[in-house]
Amino acid sequence: MLRFMTAGESHGKCLISILEGLPSGLEITQEYVNSELSRRQKGYGRGDRMKIESDKAQLLSGVRWGKTTGTPVSIEIENRDWKNWQKVMSLNEDDKNKGLFITKPRPGHADLPGILKFNLEDIRDIKERASARETASRVAVGALCKKFLSEFGIKFFSVVEEIGGVISVTKLSEIEKRYPVIEKSSLRCADMAAEKKMIKLIDNAKSRGDTLGGKFKVVIRNLIPGLGNYIQWDKRLDGRLALAPMSIQAVKGVELGAGFSFSKVLGSQA
Amino acid sequence: MLRFMTAGESHGKCLISILEGLPSGLEITQEYVNSELSRRQKGYGRGDRMKIESDKAQLLSGVRWGKTTGTPVSIEIENRDWKNWQKVMSLNEDDKNKGLFITKPRPGHADLPGILKFNLEDIRDIKERASARETASRVAVGALCKKFLSEFGIKFFSVVEEIGGVISVTKLSEIEKRYPVIEKSSLRCADMAAEKKMIKLIDNAKSRGDTLGGKFKVVIRNLIPGLGNYIQWDKRLDGRLALAPMSIQAVKGVELGAGFSFSKVLGSQA
Amino acid sequence: MLRFMTAGESHGKCLISILEGLPSGLEITQEYVNSELSRRQKGYGRGDRMKIESDKAQLLSGVRWGKTTGTPVSIEIENRDWKNWQKVMSLNEDDKNKGLFITKPRPGHADLPGILKFNLEDIRDIKERASARETASRVAVGALCKKFLSEFGIKFFSVVEEIGGVISVTKLSEIEKRYPVIEKSSLRCADMAAEKKMIKLIDNAKSRGDTLGGKFKVVIRNLIPGLGNYIQWDKRLDGRLALAPMSIQAVKGVELGAGFSFSKVLGSQA
Amino acid sequence: MLRFMTAGESHGKCLISILEGLPSGLEITQEYVNSELSRRQKGYGRGDRMKIESDKAQLLSGVRWGKTTGTPVSIEIENRDWKNWQKVMSLNEDDKNKGLFITKPRPGHADLPGILKFNLEDIRDIKERASARETASRVAVGALCKKFLSEFGIKFFSVVEEIGGVISVTKLSEIEKRYPVIEKSSLRCADMAAEKKMIKLIDNAKSRGDTLGGKFKVVIRNLIPGLGNYIQWDKRLDGRLALAPMSIQAVKGVELGAGFSFSKVLGSQA
Repeated sequence: MLRFMTAGESHGKCLISILEGLPSGLEITQEYVNSELSRRQKGYGRGDRMKIESDKAQLLSGVRWGKTTGTPVSIEIENRDWKNWQKVMSLNEDDKNKGLFITKPRPGHADLPGILKFNLEDIRDIKERASARETASRVAVGALCKKFLSEFGIKFFSVVEEIGGVISVTKLSEIEKRYPVIEKSSLRCADMAAEKKMIKLIDNAKSRGDTLGGKFKVVIRNLIPGLGNYIQWDKRLDGRLALAPMSIQAVKGVELGAGFSFSKVLGSQA
Repeated sequence: MLRFMTAGESHGKCLISILEGLPSGLEITQEYVNSELSRRQKGYGRGDRMKIESDKAQLLSGVRWGKTTGTPVSIEIENRDWKNWQKVMSLNEDDKNKGLFITKPRPGHADLPGILKFNLEDIRDIKERASARETASRVAVGALCKKFLSEFGIKFFSVVEEIGGVISVTKLSEIEKRYPVIEKSSLRCADMAAEKKMIKLIDNAKSRGDTLGGKFKVVIRNLIPGLGNYIQWDKRLDGRLALAPMSIQAVKGVELGAGFSFSKVLGSQA
Repeated sequence: MLRFMTAGESHGKCLISILEGLPSGLEITQEYVNSELSRRQKGYGRGDRMKIESDKAQLLSGVRWGKTTGTPVSIEIENRDWKNWQKVMSLNEDDKNKGLFITKPRPGHADLPGILKFNLEDIRDIKERASARETASRVAVGALCKKFLSEFGIKFFSVVEEIGGVISVTKLSEIEKRYPVIEKSSLRCADMAAEKKMIKLIDNAKSRGDTLGGKFKVVIRNLIPGLGNYIQWDKRLDGRLALAPMSIQAVKGVELGAGFSFSKVLGSQA
Repeated sequence: MLRFMTAGESHGKCLISILEGLPSGLEITQEYVNSELSRRQKGYGRGDRMKIESDKAQLLSGVRWGKTTGTPVSIEIENRDWKNWQKVMSLNEDDKNKGLFITKPRPGHADLPGILKFNLEDIRDIKERASARETASRVAVGALCKKFLSEFGIKFFSVVEEIGGVISVTKLSEIEKRYPVIEKSSLRCADMAAEKKMIKLIDNAKSRGDTLGGKFKVVIRNLIPGLGNYIQWDKRLDGRLALAPMSIQAVKGVELGAGFSFSKVLGSQA
């Protein structure tokens, strides 16, 4: 049974993750984890933070002489801009500076509920942890899980299919074939014409300090039957598959298989 | 911290649930839980099982003299058709009857992965637990949780908005006002004209042994800020809100707020 | 991974347990569970409750045609004296009777912390759940687990070794041989002379409304290497072995192996 | 609800812990955590490892400007001897050296079950994690929890009461008064005459490569009523209090209150 926890603030010294439950004997290198982290940092129009980052994971435990030992794997992802944040994120009370307090909560963020929940004064205390920066930890942990599943022949693909209303749907049957294109695309999009339109929209939005929503698809091949479990509500596969992406910042919907389009058709056509 | 487990087979003697973590002093009656169970059993075109059921919950522990005591609440929902299933679902090996084995797995169900996972011979062993009958347990448990949240002024509404492509969207601002209509509708739909069309589609599908997909909306009012928690991936509210419905049999998608329509607009318009 | 929860009050309608995680195909009969429950009810000098009880378990789910199916096993143990408690333990507010309130907390029980913790008026609300009656649930659940482990050749023995200062230690090497005697002894003691002295002490204590402490030993044979796990504090076998008995009412100490006698000797002698 | 996980090998780069669930606003300094770590490293006759260590904790997250923020606290305890272990504990397969394999399992350790459980070749993979070095993580995490509880006036005391059969029992009523002596004692013993005898025994044992067992007592003052919970077996305070020490390497027994001496007396005398 795998379990994991993450810790760390967006501009803190580092992000820390512990993943427990991997079997022994799984080949893992730091380079592999870093290659997954670098995939996270691609993406046209991303915030400047992404450029600074160029994240490097350090495996602090659980891997020895190239293989997991069965003990908890802990991973550090350093904040490469830490030198500029040491005072703001300092451990010491002496560095406290009310002049730096953020007091204006952003809509749609955890700022307001967070400051109420934890009775804090500085919204930075919320946003540093509520930040999507935390997903770097999940990518590192996910890289290890992906490696584990790949031992069974399970393969993962992902593709961006919509940004700002520009749609580019990749057929399930073509995703593997088109994957080299997708991996090279600055938007992880399979259709270059659509990508151009998306980029234009992004440039426009960005110039006005705005953002755009979108959709992405994840395809898992060779999945082994019997994952998840129908015996208890909290072990059912669909629920757990939904929990994972919906716990990512800014993800507001998830469909499995044909998803909501099932609402248009007969059961026999689904 | 609330936790709950359910047990029981679709045609077994009963369904059993244990809910732990409710505070003491919450007013609970069996009648209230039963009224919630009867809401589950409404719905035009449902299977015959629904009609037989007319579920009655029995609170076996955790409630005394009208109020919770803080101890685990256990709930039994009897199978009112048990007398016809005693042999098929018997505890005793003597009742084993290979002639009754179900051996043809249904697509889209847990039948095949289940029989492989648990190394069983009779698909009935899978379908009895994988069945949506289990949601009766969750309604009973949910009734208690709803009562708890209602103490803080939190209110719940739900409405069917699409069946087989016939759409009837209820504005958020009107759901409370229209709720008496929705509660009386045989399809929990706010628009009588749409309901008629849906019923026709259902009749057609049913006559051919087919089914129809649909969409429903749940609206929660007066929610208290600070539910969920941004400090860890598995405590984030959106993820947990997604896990609950996605662990229900046949639910294949979930959106929060504007959901997927965010993919069409600028962040400033969302 | 096995997990279980129990519910139910000492004089409520019944005790309910759910055990999840047993594999399929394990042979289980109600008679077997009842034989384990009847072992719990032996014991010279026990309270009158024990005599009334003669507990019978009913397996409500998870077992079909003589074998587990892999789904949650739920177990009901009826209160055979329920007819005399229906008013006192009633669900209905109308049966509330302040004249029945227990308001004098017993030392060494959960009475006082419980009534403070849950803000209750009647100590009965505490004692009904804090009661050692709850261990009947654990015996039923434990019977299933014991059956599971017995498939691997693992055997369990237990023996009373001290009551009120009268000591009767059974050598590890002799426990299996002497087990028929132990099982027949009214005190589960291997030495008839010691048993006589213990019975006399019990009679004396009982006549004065007093009780006696004691010690028991559990011996597990053929245990498989690798149970528990050194990779995380909460998975270590010694800790989990201690948690189980120490969560039983009135158990105040636990030793593994030579236990505290290790404090007298060199490591090389242990 | 607090939860924590630890990771890290005895001679790895560092130990990592994540503690989640502390409230915000708790004053924490690195110096305080280090002072608790240094208490762990005292103790006459300890292994040489202890002397090298002089552990320093680094708080990597969850504390800002002198106070907790409510986010997970992660703690790194560096291996100050890491430069000598980089090859042996290296991440890289190139550093694998069969000549360094440990193949002789020690009795009473996790060596043999571990190597079987995880199918490993080098016992070092087991002993590095099964090592009591891991308790440094727990001391760091425990320091934070202790600080939290101290906000409610709860105080902790501990004292060594037996080593190798030399006994020095401190009365409960005197432990607070004698605590300065205990804190200064090289064995955390309140009686200097007993300490001398213990030291002599330790010297003798050590000179022969042997070790000695012992007993220690933990006293918690001003504990708040209502900790733990009688509603479910795994929440009961006694069980949880036993789990914690019994999951520490080499601890083989635990008693609460009068513990096993209850077996000698009447309930009314206990």
